[in-house]
Amino acid sequence: MNAHLVESFGITVRRLREGRGWSQEELAGHADLNRSYVGEIERGQVIVSLVTIQKLSSALGLSAGALMLQSEQLSSFRAAQGINLMAIAC
Amino acid sequence: MNAHLVESFGITVRRLREGRGWSQEELAGHADLNRSYVGEIERGQVIVSLVTIQKLSSALGLSAGALMLQSEQLSSFRAAQGINLMAIAC
Repeated sequence: MNAHLVESFGITVRRLREGRGWSQEELAGHADLNRSYVGEIERGQVIVSLVTIQKLSSALGLSAGALMLQSEQLSSFRAAQGINLMAIAC
Repeated sequence: MNAHLVESFGITVRRLREGRGWSQEELAGHADLNRSYVGEIERGQVIVSLVTIQKLSSALGLSAGALMLQSEQLSSFRAAQGINLMAIAC
């Protein structure tokens, strides 16, 4: 479940960034983060801190709580999909 | 604002823990964290990761997003209080 949330957080950030028509570099600039670090976050390769969550959410124009809620919803959806695929396979 | 949120996150965790009548040790056990680390979190001395936020929220029976929202509300309230105190002082 943790891995799901880390990945889902990255996907949520990428979707919100693309929704604004921003490059990773632009988001990094707005959030005061390194561009390559933003790439790693979006690919679910790093576990962000509370401060980074706040920097990203602030740059993307929503609260940290709202960003987390969206990530959790996606995580739950992806977990359910995984369960369904297993059910089909069995 | 970042320092406010880190502190407010700790205070929110402490309030929720006390609301359950748990010791720091009990919360640590439920969240699979070290007791002294829980103490540091509650005192705003460490910046938690996404995974730790999820562990704590899960142990406390709410979503990570809801825990973040509560922390942000407290952070905003405390920031407003600080501004008001400055206004009185001037």
